[in-house]
Amino acid sequence: MIVQKYKDMLKGKSVIRQLSEFATARGKEIGYENVFDYSLGNPSVPVPQQFTDTMIDLLQHKNPMELHGYSQSLGIPEVRDKIAASLNKRFGMNYTGNHIFMATGAAGAIAHAVRCVSEPGDEILTFAPYFPEYGPYIDLTGATLKVVPADTKNFQIDFEAFERMLTEKVAAVLINTPNNPSGTVYSTETLRTLASVMTRKQEEYGHDIFLISDEPYREIVFAGVDSPYPSRFYDNTLSCYSFSKSLSLPGERIGYVAVNPKCRDAELISTMCSQISRGTGHNCPPSIIQLAVAEVLDLTADLSVYETNMNILYKELTSLGFECVKPGGTFYIFPKALEEDAVAFSEKAKKYDLILVPSDTFGVKGYVRLAYCIDTDKVERSLSAFRKFVKNEY
Amino acid sequence: MIVQKYKDMLKGKSVIRQLSEFATARGKEIGYENVFDYSLGNPSVPVPQQFTDTMIDLLQHKNPMELHGYSQSLGIPEVRDKIAASLNKRFGMNYTGNHIFMATGAAGAIAHAVRCVSEPGDEILTFAPYFPEYGPYIDLTGATLKVVPADTKNFQIDFEAFERMLTEKVAAVLINTPNNPSGTVYSTETLRTLASVMTRKQEEYGHDIFLISDEPYREIVFAGVDSPYPSRFYDNTLSCYSFSKSLSLPGERIGYVAVNPKCRDAELISTMCSQISRGTGHNCPPSIIQLAVAEVLDLTADLSVYETNMNILYKELTSLGFECVKPGGTFYIFPKALEEDAVAFSEKAKKYDLILVPSDTFGVKGYVRLAYCIDTDKVERSLSAFRKFVKNEY
Repeated sequence: MIVQKYKDMLKGKSVIRQLSEFATARGKEIGYENVFDYSLGNPSVPVPQQFTDTMIDLLQHKNPMELHGYSQSLGIPEVRDKIAASLNKRFGMNYTGNHIFMATGAAGAIAHAVRCVSEPGDEILTFAPYFPEYGPYIDLTGATLKVVPADTKNFQIDFEAFERMLTEKVAAVLINTPNNPSGTVYSTETLRTLASVMTRKQEEYGHDIFLISDEPYREIVFAGVDSPYPSRFYDNTLSCYSFSKSLSLPGERIGYVAVNPKCRDAELISTMCSQISRGTGHNCPPSIIQLAVAEVLDLTADLSVYETNMNILYKELTSLGFECVKPGGTFYIFPKALEEDAVAFSEKAKKYDLILVPSDTFGVKGYVRLAYCIDTDKVERSLSAFRKFVKNEY
Repeated sequence: MIVQKYKDMLKGKSVIRQLSEFATARGKEIGYENVFDYSLGNPSVPVPQQFTDTMIDLLQHKNPMELHGYSQSLGIPEVRDKIAASLNKRFGMNYTGNHIFMATGAAGAIAHAVRCVSEPGDEILTFAPYFPEYGPYIDLTGATLKVVPADTKNFQIDFEAFERMLTEKVAAVLINTPNNPSGTVYSTETLRTLASVMTRKQEEYGHDIFLISDEPYREIVFAGVDSPYPSRFYDNTLSCYSFSKSLSLPGERIGYVAVNPKCRDAELISTMCSQISRGTGHNCPPSIIQLAVAEVLDLTADLSVYETNMNILYKELTSLGFECVKPGGTFYIFPKALEEDAVAFSEKAKKYDLILVPSDTFGVKGYVRLAYCIDTDKVERSLSAFRKFVKNEY
């Protein structure tokens, strides 16, 4: 029998995807260059040339049976060693290759990390505003996602609400910093308090509470912003990374889980991921992509356009009267809508060909998300549309 | 808390993997060229040059943002269309791209197919001898794998045993033709009888029973052997394919599920796969690999070495007194051991540097599997070791 659960999921179409489809359709009418499509978080800058050169070099010079042969299900050992070394150098950690599990992007990393540390029925806490895919990701592991209400003052953490929800049933806490959709980066103080609350609760309940840290935007941090490495603050941390945004490689599905060496049974956890992968059908990311990213670990695409765009938008939006927490990273900005109902607000914005995602889908009401991973020229041209929109000129 | 289930799985180390490690260690002592390592099913011939050329061409000429951008979670539409067209041409089917779900190899395909059609607690039937990874694959979906005893006469299907086990609890039947480990190809008669029993039982029970057909060896079929396409015989068929063996690309993790258009809710099933993928963290196979295989769908690596090796081994083994069903495809041969205990037999073979996998791991006793995806020269050199082994000369 066809399983009803997955059939039902098809009904809940992604709001972001719907808006993106609207933008594409509108583009066919008026030219896509005239649609200010802020819907999708798709990188807008090319992968570094070194990645392409490495791929070509591997294809031209490496023995194809080795190049395309099975890698271990944990990932290629040399690749895992290089990732460990790079993280150690950058963040003062003590990973070895044994703490790294190669995954198909952050989605794959989270799928494995959550299964390592939670049984069906356990709770996973995350914080609003949050990436809506966490819903199905967690739901399909059998655990239950619970969302801590947003600290709307600055999109750090509402610790009172957090502590109230951090009951004995919580197996793990899932954070995302720099954050999609708010652009906020968790401060040292936030991470320190988070760690201290979790440590205290671990002792009180007598069981581990894991921190699953989703970090695809780790490399997109703006000038003057301190972006501390969450795993430095809390031993039981599984860091989930994707190269999608830093290297502009979202389609190539490559990332990893890095298990803090001080985590309980650290090396066991990464090895368990390879057992879990037998059930998810994951096995390992493609060998050629693993080998190629290993050569560009300390590079990124030219990410400067995102900061340029953020500054333009932040200045204009605040001067137009939008309340807005200044993003510290990512390619998102999350202003408060000019009316209570963000869905209605986003609907009206369409008239000005401004495609904004209402915040309801991120677990908080009254905001809109702009994904400004688009050309700066288009961002600039969108400003007059914003002005007209705010003045209700049509 | 760390999940005990996955921790426990680590204890059950794969017999095949252990033998492969033994072979590698022994190779360090006497030179790997002197170890007759028949343990692993790793292709021994290079990928077609056209694949490599296509990859390089894509890297050199395609816009990197498009090339490495997100593909739809079902896979790139043009790639799915091309796969449908190729299957239609070869097997007289009526697939459209909408019936194809791109997956990370057959493992990924099976993970999605099984989840589509079975609830936790349902039974999945397969036939001994079978690929041992089916155990964890199925177990981690929540369904239960039940193994129909082998038809040891010719490794087709023991229909009496099958019908006895095809109870109301069975959601799907998982077949693998050409078969790992026996090398057998299911005949038209076998597939016809299978379909007729399943059709009858579907009616009797009033619910669908799906056929999940695992076909990574589809392209490795020897001269004179008829290899019918299972989906032609039974409407409710999900065909799971991997390019690992046909194109010698096991590390690149690329394959698909093809849903028979006559399957109940056929297009719904492929779309459901993309919902399941949100839970498995799979998303889609890498875009560049999807695009590159789409250009070589009707090519294979030069697979002729496997048939050459099979003929040499079959002739020698039977003349040495081994009972052996002649393989119709794959790169495996599955002779009866010369004593009842295949584990003990395989252990003794090691003394002659013959690495044979005892059949217990494939769900049947008293046989050994030889994976002859190795150089023909080594196969020939192994014959004198077999002769000595049989005569117990050491």
